[in-house]
Amino acid sequence: MSLKLVTLLKSHATVMNLRNNVLSNCFAKSITTSSCHKIQEEVSKLLALKAQLNTEDAGPQKFTLKTPKGTRDYNPQQMSIRNDVLQKIITVFKRHGAECIDTPVFELKEVLTGKYGEDSKLIYDLKDQGGEILSLRYDLTVPLARYLAMNKITNLKRYHIAKVYRRDNPAMTRGRYREFYQCDFDIAGAYDPMVPDAECLKVVTEILDTLNIGQYVLKINHRRLLDGMFEACGVPADKFRATCSTVDKLDKSPWDEVRTEMINEKGVTPEAADKIGEYVRLNGGTELAEKLLKDEKLSKTKAAVEGLEGIKLLLEYCALFGIKDKILFDLSLARGLDYYTGVIYEAVLTQPIKIGNEEQTVGSIAGGGRYDNLVGMFDSKHKQVPCVGVSVGVERVFSVLEAKLAAGDIAVRTSDIDVYVASAQKNFLEERIKVCAELWNAGIKTEQSYKKNPKMLNQLQHCEENGIPLAVVLGQSELERGVVKIRNIVSRQEDEVPRDSLVQELKTRISALNKEINGTS
Amino acid sequence: MSLKLVTLLKSHATVMNLRNNVLSNCFAKSITTSSCHKIQEEVSKLLALKAQLNTEDAGPQKFTLKTPKGTRDYNPQQMSIRNDVLQKIITVFKRHGAECIDTPVFELKEVLTGKYGEDSKLIYDLKDQGGEILSLRYDLTVPLARYLAMNKITNLKRYHIAKVYRRDNPAMTRGRYREFYQCDFDIAGAYDPMVPDAECLKVVTEILDTLNIGQYVLKINHRRLLDGMFEACGVPADKFRATCSTVDKLDKSPWDEVRTEMINEKGVTPEAADKIGEYVRLNGGTELAEKLLKDEKLSKTKAAVEGLEGIKLLLEYCALFGIKDKILFDLSLARGLDYYTGVIYEAVLTQPIKIGNEEQTVGSIAGGGRYDNLVGMFDSKHKQVPCVGVSVGVERVFSVLEAKLAAGDIAVRTSDIDVYVASAQKNFLEERIKVCAELWNAGIKTEQSYKKNPKMLNQLQHCEENGIPLAVVLGQSELERGVVKIRNIVSRQEDEVPRDSLVQELKTRISALNKEINGTS
Repeated sequence: MSLKLVTLLKSHATVMNLRNNVLSNCFAKSITTSSCHKIQEEVSKLLALKAQLNTEDAGPQKFTLKTPKGTRDYNPQQMSIRNDVLQKIITVFKRHGAECIDTPVFELKEVLTGKYGEDSKLIYDLKDQGGEILSLRYDLTVPLARYLAMNKITNLKRYHIAKVYRRDNPAMTRGRYREFYQCDFDIAGAYDPMVPDAECLKVVTEILDTLNIGQYVLKINHRRLLDGMFEACGVPADKFRATCSTVDKLDKSPWDEVRTEMINEKGVTPEAADKIGEYVRLNGGTELAEKLLKDEKLSKTKAAVEGLEGIKLLLEYCALFGIKDKILFDLSLARGLDYYTGVIYEAVLTQPIKIGNEEQTVGSIAGGGRYDNLVGMFDSKHKQVPCVGVSVGVERVFSVLEAKLAAGDIAVRTSDIDVYVASAQKNFLEERIKVCAELWNAGIKTEQSYKKNPKMLNQLQHCEENGIPLAVVLGQSELERGVVKIRNIVSRQEDEVPRDSLVQELKTRISALNKEINGTS
Repeated sequence: MSLKLVTLLKSHATVMNLRNNVLSNCFAKSITTSSCHKIQEEVSKLLALKAQLNTEDAGPQKFTLKTPKGTRDYNPQQMSIRNDVLQKIITVFKRHGAECIDTPVFELKEVLTGKYGEDSKLIYDLKDQGGEILSLRYDLTVPLARYLAMNKITNLKRYHIAKVYRRDNPAMTRGRYREFYQCDFDIAGAYDPMVPDAECLKVVTEILDTLNIGQYVLKINHRRLLDGMFEACGVPADKFRATCSTVDKLDKSPWDEVRTEMINEKGVTPEAADKIGEYVRLNGGTELAEKLLKDEKLSKTKAAVEGLEGIKLLLEYCALFGIKDKILFDLSLARGLDYYTGVIYEAVLTQPIKIGNEEQTVGSIAGGGRYDNLVGMFDSKHKQVPCVGVSVGVERVFSVLEAKLAAGDIAVRTSDIDVYVASAQKNFLEERIKVCAELWNAGIKTEQSYKKNPKMLNQLQHCEENGIPLAVVLGQSELERGVVKIRNIVSRQEDEVPRDSLVQELKTRISALNKEINGTS
């Protein structure tokens, strides 16, 4: 303890020295930027030492035990749901031939700079601990573009399932977190118009159908059409992106508020805003695209015509894919991110989901679009790789399923042990260990109590609580006769089988039980 | 553009103002710690604005395109290897009834403070952006302990596979990264001595056997024995942990260097160091534990006797599990982390691995131990939950398998598409789209070209390069006759089948092909 005191005093002396250094630096004859930097360095050192002093002084822990704001743990039941949902999504991605890649959780800060528009303020930065300046990834799209440019890859169909990070205001009951999963499917490469774009929409329908979480609509729009529309309404070109971000708020705010923001914050004239207001209330199908192609203002705007022709072609391919009834061409869809250049889309659940006796509104569940210029931003010669992709926001799906679990509407099993090795008498730990080893070596999912002399009742209760179907019950008299008992937990029936054929007998029974389950589900 | 210039000038003016603020602050009459803090704040703002100026000024990107130091992307082949390895490990974990949990990638910094001893300097901190002070997780053990304490869980057998972060010196060719996977299996709960501990060792053997990466030894030791040994050698109690960290370096440094560090940096006397030196060269089995129980010095030290009795019991259970030939009781094993309290272990590959014509040494591949006091550190009433666990360091396994792949010793497939929908003639995109939709809806893994009129040769080449076994070839004359051709890519044989029975016919062929593959592998 006296040693600790010495260390503390020493640290304190160092802090004092540093503080003096800072003071003399401050009063030095000329303060340049570089000496300011020096000050900052010394101050940091001082603060770090102070923090250390506090820690050593701390004694028992005093902070509230929690996960960071906007994040959560997944318990075994939640993981069971999560793994099941992700597995279904992966199955769809693989059915379309997507390969899997992964990238680091952080990127050089410069990689993320200038890619997300207004949302950039939500990026998590790492502390400068010497070396590179890093930020946590904000999505999986920018890392993909960096990956393609860095490796000079011009063709790739990939999926990527990983967590991304946004310092947003969390709304955790509705599945909005600061750490959350994205499931991305993207097609990179120069191909014919709308062919990969339409496949992305097909992928979304397959995922939403397999997740079986209710009716949905796939809203589509086109950035070229939005640009053309802004142009036709008299918005100057340098305000297109800002106006677009404002239109994006239409899914949460009424037109009046959006109009006010356009005029007061984005510098759009009231006349232009009103004209935009007329367009963004339109939605429909091919007939709307055709009508707009004849629109007096839009038909004279190259960008708008390009966008409308694109939408028409996309709708045609969607019809061939058999998903046209799920698509809605919606001029109010804008998407927040800066990097989209062509078609954009968003999947929205159209009905609240029933959970127990309550209803929960989920809203947007997937989104994406075409971004033809993003890879080029990373290439020294600005070589472009056209890309289109979709991102499924599974946290909302998890939330719904977890609420269903809590309401007793669904049940999950968190381990899939088939056999529990139990003993009715004392001093059977050694025998149990040997049997467990034998079953594990045969690939049988097996558990036992970690107690030397567990009670029979507790062992059987564990089986019932965890849905373990079979127990091997060891006993002195049986072992002497060269047999063991197999107990069916549900029926409570016990059968003696020869010790030598235990593995074979268990395998037969497990296989029969599995067939039973698959047959009835 | 003129607008941008204005913004730049404005920003510059703000920077100048801030700089002046800093200067006047520095020359203020009395500089207290709080004004130092103020200076630091202003300097940070200034630097942030400067950085912004630089960014806006940047034009085309100038930074080197790379992943952060010590990290890497995984390409599809690497992902294929990684997913295969992780799946094998999960199978073992599940065979032992482990449930799965997940925790956030970052924790409150305070959660990690004081848990890792000397290694704490390697923790990645997040920038203070207002709100909580966060750090990236350093391992999966401390988050587990936080999870158990926070949720008042006293029993759990869980696995957790996730990335952890250490600002270490990377040695990437040998699989040492700053971002890397850990595969953890832990048993929490108050049970009888060494029963769960022995199962952890059994789990490690099953994993290393299934990964099939060569011969290995599982070194075991006991923290109580180490403490008792230090005591018996005359090391004061407050130097046990520091001495232990030094012993831990024996796997990389010779005894002479370790001895010097003990004496010069840890304040151990030369006499004590020499006595330690005699013990740490010992290794063996049960007979060594028994011999040491009779050792003059150790037998008088309570901690040493406890440790040795523990080792004896563990070796007994290992014998019953049938893994004793893989265990080595080794007194030089110390493990770096502070939180271990009982048995510790480490799996080491004993032979270099042959890759092509070269050999690669892998070394340590898994490690763990008992940590009975860690959960209590998070509990306000210091309520303990005894835990034991093991962590498998799979990056080294990935490295070995990737090197084998590069040397041509193994091959992997990155997508598992079964059917490619091709057309021999032009203007068949629409027909291809319809067939693809039909096959996807039937659950068949299908791909097509995203070009309107791809060349037949290119389509078949894609199948060959990607190991796609079957192609559906669409043609005008066949469609008019109500048939399509199925081509076997390897044999090049083509058969006509009725268009109506295409799905059924493909399913039959895919199932036959899969049986063929599984039969021969």
